[in-house]
Amino acid sequence: MAKIAFIGLGNMGSPMAGNLIKAGHEVTVYDLVPEAVSKLTDAGANAAGSAAEAVKGVEYVVSMLPAGRHVQDLYLGDGGVLEAVDSSATVIDCSTIAAEEARAVNAAAAERGVAMIDAPVSGGVGGAEKATLTFICGGDEAAVDHARPILEVMGKAVFRAGPAGAGQVGKMCNNMLLAIQMIGTSEALNLGTAYGLDPEALSEIMKASSGNNWALQVYNPYPGVMDGVPASRGYQGGFLVDLMTKDLGLAMNMSLEKGTATPLGAAARNLYRLHGAAGHGGLDFSSILQFLAGNDIE
Amino acid sequence: MAKIAFIGLGNMGSPMAGNLIKAGHEVTVYDLVPEAVSKLTDAGANAAGSAAEAVKGVEYVVSMLPAGRHVQDLYLGDGGVLEAVDSSATVIDCSTIAAEEARAVNAAAAERGVAMIDAPVSGGVGGAEKATLTFICGGDEAAVDHARPILEVMGKAVFRAGPAGAGQVGKMCNNMLLAIQMIGTSEALNLGTAYGLDPEALSEIMKASSGNNWALQVYNPYPGVMDGVPASRGYQGGFLVDLMTKDLGLAMNMSLEKGTATPLGAAARNLYRLHGAAGHGGLDFSSILQFLAGNDIE
Amino acid sequence: MAKIAFIGLGNMGSPMAGNLIKAGHEVTVYDLVPEAVSKLTDAGANAAGSAAEAVKGVEYVVSMLPAGRHVQDLYLGDGGVLEAVDSSATVIDCSTIAAEEARAVNAAAAERGVAMIDAPVSGGVGGAEKATLTFICGGDEAAVDHARPILEVMGKAVFRAGPAGAGQVGKMCNNMLLAIQMIGTSEALNLGTAYGLDPEALSEIMKASSGNNWALQVYNPYPGVMDGVPASRGYQGGFLVDLMTKDLGLAMNMSLEKGTATPLGAAARNLYRLHGAAGHGGLDFSSILQFLAGNDIE
Amino acid sequence: MAKIAFIGLGNMGSPMAGNLIKAGHEVTVYDLVPEAVSKLTDAGANAAGSAAEAVKGVEYVVSMLPAGRHVQDLYLGDGGVLEAVDSSATVIDCSTIAAEEARAVNAAAAERGVAMIDAPVSGGVGGAEKATLTFICGGDEAAVDHARPILEVMGKAVFRAGPAGAGQVGKMCNNMLLAIQMIGTSEALNLGTAYGLDPEALSEIMKASSGNNWALQVYNPYPGVMDGVPASRGYQGGFLVDLMTKDLGLAMNMSLEKGTATPLGAAARNLYRLHGAAGHGGLDFSSILQFLAGNDIE
Repeated sequence: MAKIAFIGLGNMGSPMAGNLIKAGHEVTVYDLVPEAVSKLTDAGANAAGSAAEAVKGVEYVVSMLPAGRHVQDLYLGDGGVLEAVDSSATVIDCSTIAAEEARAVNAAAAERGVAMIDAPVSGGVGGAEKATLTFICGGDEAAVDHARPILEVMGKAVFRAGPAGAGQVGKMCNNMLLAIQMIGTSEALNLGTAYGLDPEALSEIMKASSGNNWALQVYNPYPGVMDGVPASRGYQGGFLVDLMTKDLGLAMNMSLEKGTATPLGAAARNLYRLHGAAGHGGLDFSSILQFLAGNDIE
Repeated sequence: MAKIAFIGLGNMGSPMAGNLIKAGHEVTVYDLVPEAVSKLTDAGANAAGSAAEAVKGVEYVVSMLPAGRHVQDLYLGDGGVLEAVDSSATVIDCSTIAAEEARAVNAAAAERGVAMIDAPVSGGVGGAEKATLTFICGGDEAAVDHARPILEVMGKAVFRAGPAGAGQVGKMCNNMLLAIQMIGTSEALNLGTAYGLDPEALSEIMKASSGNNWALQVYNPYPGVMDGVPASRGYQGGFLVDLMTKDLGLAMNMSLEKGTATPLGAAARNLYRLHGAAGHGGLDFSSILQFLAGNDIE
Repeated sequence: MAKIAFIGLGNMGSPMAGNLIKAGHEVTVYDLVPEAVSKLTDAGANAAGSAAEAVKGVEYVVSMLPAGRHVQDLYLGDGGVLEAVDSSATVIDCSTIAAEEARAVNAAAAERGVAMIDAPVSGGVGGAEKATLTFICGGDEAAVDHARPILEVMGKAVFRAGPAGAGQVGKMCNNMLLAIQMIGTSEALNLGTAYGLDPEALSEIMKASSGNNWALQVYNPYPGVMDGVPASRGYQGGFLVDLMTKDLGLAMNMSLEKGTATPLGAAARNLYRLHGAAGHGGLDFSSILQFLAGNDIE
Repeated sequence: MAKIAFIGLGNMGSPMAGNLIKAGHEVTVYDLVPEAVSKLTDAGANAAGSAAEAVKGVEYVVSMLPAGRHVQDLYLGDGGVLEAVDSSATVIDCSTIAAEEARAVNAAAAERGVAMIDAPVSGGVGGAEKATLTFICGGDEAAVDHARPILEVMGKAVFRAGPAGAGQVGKMCNNMLLAIQMIGTSEALNLGTAYGLDPEALSEIMKASSGNNWALQVYNPYPGVMDGVPASRGYQGGFLVDLMTKDLGLAMNMSLEKGTATPLGAAARNLYRLHGAAGHGGLDFSSILQFLAGNDIE
C-alpha cells in the first residue's frame, strides 16, 4: 500500500480519494473546504493543514482542481508542493487545464527532479464514484507506468497520449467530440420525435446502427429514455453546461493556435455558450436537447 | 423456405440477394444490368424478364433502388409490381428515399390490399456482405413481423420505428447523426495530431471515453489506424460523399418541413457539399477528414 | 390614371394600396377582414364583394398575400381571378412565395393569355408606408415594363431579375443575405461592447468601413443607437422573427434543390429558428442581437 | 508641415507614407527592405539607418507592421523607438494586432511619457493609395485629436473607438463583420446564379435592397460584375485569405476571452481556414465565392 496525498476534494476529487482509501492506501487529504475534508477523514483519511504539509513523505501526489490558475498556485508558488515533496515521489495532476499550462507545471517539476504527469479524466462524477474513469495521461512513459497502479484503483482504463501536456490535448479532443455528439444526438432525437417516432425506439435504432455513440449508450439526453441519467431528473447534476463551454473554449484556443479547421467544434462551442447565456449554465450538458427544441427548462 | 423476388442488384442489393440464396430461399431477381443478374443466377437465382414477371406468385418482394423516383416507377406505374403481385405477398422496400415518398408508395400498396413496409438499412456494403445490416422498418406491426425472418437472413437487427414512412425517418435521423459524428471524429483527430498525438493512440483514448462512437469502433477516418476501412485504401469504395450529401439533403428537407432546429446537421450538409463540389464526391464519406485538414486527395 | 384592383390589405398591402389612391388611381380593394377594407374605402377606395368582382374591368391587379397557398387559392381556383380578369390586364403578385409556386401561377395566367409577374418587395412596413419599397420582378420584360409606372408609385426602385419566378429567387437571395448580415452585425456589436466600446461609436466606425451594411445604415439592432427602429422600441413591430425564419426556409429549400452550399445561410436559419422557438417569434428580427447576448426580452 | 517618421513600408505603409510626402510633410522612413526605402526616397523621403535614428526629433511616429511581434520588437526592446523619440512626440501604430498587445505597447509608451495611440485601418491597399482609409483609433482623446490632421492626410475618416486597445477591438469587430458579409454575399450570388439569375442584376437588386453592403458597393466577389476589383482579375492582389484568417483568429480569441457567442464569426473563420488550407491562402478574400461554388481557381 502506498502513501498518497490527495489535493482537491470537489465533486470529482472526493469520490476518487474515497476509492484510494477503500483500496487500503494511506491517504492524506487537503482542501480549503472543511466539510470536504471531514467527509474523507470520516472515511479514513488523514487531514493536513496545508498542501505542503500533505505531500511530505508521500510516494504519490494526486491533485484534482477546477482550473489552470489553481494548479499553478499549487505547484508553481514559493513554498509550494514541488518544494515540499520528496524528489522520488510521482505527481499526478488530474485537473483539466490548458495543455501549455500543464507543460509549464510539468517542466517546473522536472527542474526539481520530480516526476509529474498530467492525467485528466473522462467519465464524470458517475465514473469517479464507480471507479470507471478513463485517465488520459501526458508525461514520460516511466512516470505514467509508475502512476498506473494508483490510477487503476480510480478508473477502468489508463492511456498515455504522449509527452507532458498530451493528456490535456487528448482530453480536449475527446470533450470536443463529446459535445458535438451530444448535440448531434439531440438533433436526431428532436427531428425523429417531430415525425412521431418514439424517442426510446429511435435511440435503440441508432445505437444498433452507424449513429451509435456514448450518449446513446449511457447518457441519453431525452427525458425518460434511460434511468439514472441527468435527462431523467430534470438535467440536475452531471457535467454542467458552463464546464462544457469552458472545455470547448480550451479546444477552440488549441484550434486557433494550430490553425486547425474545427467547424462543428466551433458551432458546438457557440451553441453551448448560447444555452448557458440563456440562463442554463448550471444544468447538465445533455440539456442542450431542450435548448434546440425551444422547450422551457426550469 | 420462401419464394422471394429481389429487384435492384447494385452494390447493396447484390450481396443481400446472395445471402437469401445462401439461406436456401427460392429467389427470382431482376435488374436492368445483365451482368448484375448473371452474377446472381450463377449463385442460384432465377432471372425474370421484368419486375412484374419476377413478382408473380412470390411470398415476398424485396427492392433495393437508388432513389425515390426509381421506387415510384417500380411500384406506382400501370402494369407495375403492385398489380402483378399476389395480395397475400409482403413487399419490403429497402431503398433510402424521402419519408413522404415511402408513405405514398405504401398507401398505394394498401389500396390494392398488399402489405408493404419501408425497411432502409444501416451498415453499408460491408454489412450487406456480412449479413450484419440493421433494418429500420416503417409499417404495420403485423407486416414487419411477417418480414422479420427474411430480414434477419440479411442483417443482425430488425427494428420497427413506427407506421409507414417511419423507417425512412429513422434512417435519416441516424445518417444525419452519423455525418455529424464522422466530421466530429475527424476534427478531433486532426486537432490532436496537430499537437503531435498519435492518431491510433488518440482513437483508442476516445473510444474508451465519452467520445466513443461507431466511426472510432469500425470506420476510423484516419489512414492506417484501422485495417480494411476506406481510410486505409485511399477512401475508395464505401459510402460515397455524394450519397451522404443526398441523405443530408433529405434530412434537411425534413427539418425544414417540421421547423426543427438542426444546426450541426445543416453544417454537416454544407461541409459534405463543399467536399463533393471540390471534386471528391466519389470518395468514401470518411474522407471528410482530409478535406478538413486541407490535404490533397487523389 | 389607371383602374386597379388591390387584393390583400395587411400590414404591407394596406399602405401600398393607400399610396396608389393618393396618386389618383381608381382602386378597388378586397380583403377578408372588413376593418382592413373600411380603412381603405375611407381613403377613397371602392370595395368589392369578392376578389373576382374586384378585378372586373381593371387594367392592373395587385396582390399582397401571406403565403403561397393564399396565392394559389386566389389565382388557381375555379371561378377565380384569372377567369374574371380582362385578358388585357397585367397581374402583379407582390407576395413572397416559393419560386416554383410563382412559376406555376404565372404559367396558369399565361395559359389564359393574361400577363403576370411576380414582384416581391424589400423594405418592410416602413418602406410600404413611405413608398420607398424595392420591387424585385420576375416575368416577361414587356409585362415588367407595363407594371413599372404602377410599382413606382409604391416604391423607389423596380428591378427585373429575370423570367417568371426570378423575382422570388432574387427576394430570397436578398433576405438570406439580410439575415446573415443582421446576425453578423449583432455579433460584432456584442463583441465590441463586451470590450467596453460604445455601440453607437462602433456602429459609426463599421458604417464608415468595410463592415458597412443596410442594418448599420437604417436598422441598427442595438437599442438606443438609432431612433425609430424596432431595437429602440423593444423590438415591437417590424419584420418578425417567424417571417424571417419562413423566408430562410424557402432559401434553404432552394439551396437543397440546386445543391448549392450556403453554410452561413443554413446557420442563420437555425439561429432564427432557435430564437423563435425560445418564444420570440413575434419580435422584430433585429432582436437576434439579444438572443446572441443571452439577454431576456419581454 | 510636420516632421514625421514612418516605419514599415509594405503594401499598405508605402502608399500611406507617399501621401504624407505629397502633402508636404517632412518624412523620414525606415524599413528592412532597401527597395521599399528607395521607392520612398525617390518620392522625397529621408532614409534612416535604424528605426531609432528615424524617430529622432520628429513630432509624429507612424508605424505599419505585419503582426504583434514586430510591433513589440519595435517599441518594447532596449534602445528602441520609445527611448529615442522625444517625449513630446505622438506615436501612431497603424498595425493590426491583438488588443492586449496594443494596450501593452501603449502602456510602455505612457511610462516614458510618450503619447501613443493604436490606429488600425480599414480600406485595404486601394484605400491606402487613394487616401480613403478609415482609421479606428484607441487612446486618449487628446492624443487622437493631435494625430487627427496627420491621419486625415492618409484617409477619409478618423474615429476614436475608446481608450488604448479600443482601435484594435473596433478593427476586429469590423473585419469579422466584413468576412461574414463577404461569405453571405457570395452565398446569395451563388444561389441566385444557380437559378439562372444574372450576377450583375442580382447584385444591383440586393444593393438597392436590405442586402446592401460594402462588398456589393465596391468589392463584388463575382468575376466580371465590377471593374478593378480582385474578382475581375483572378482574385490577385487585395486582402489575402490568410490575412483574413489571421484577423478572424484574433476576433475568435476575443470572443473566447469574453465568453461572447459569435456563431457566424466562428463559421466564417473555419470557412476561410478551409479555403486557405485548400491552397488558396494567397488569393484575395473575395475568392471565397469560388470555394463555396466548388470551382477550381488557378
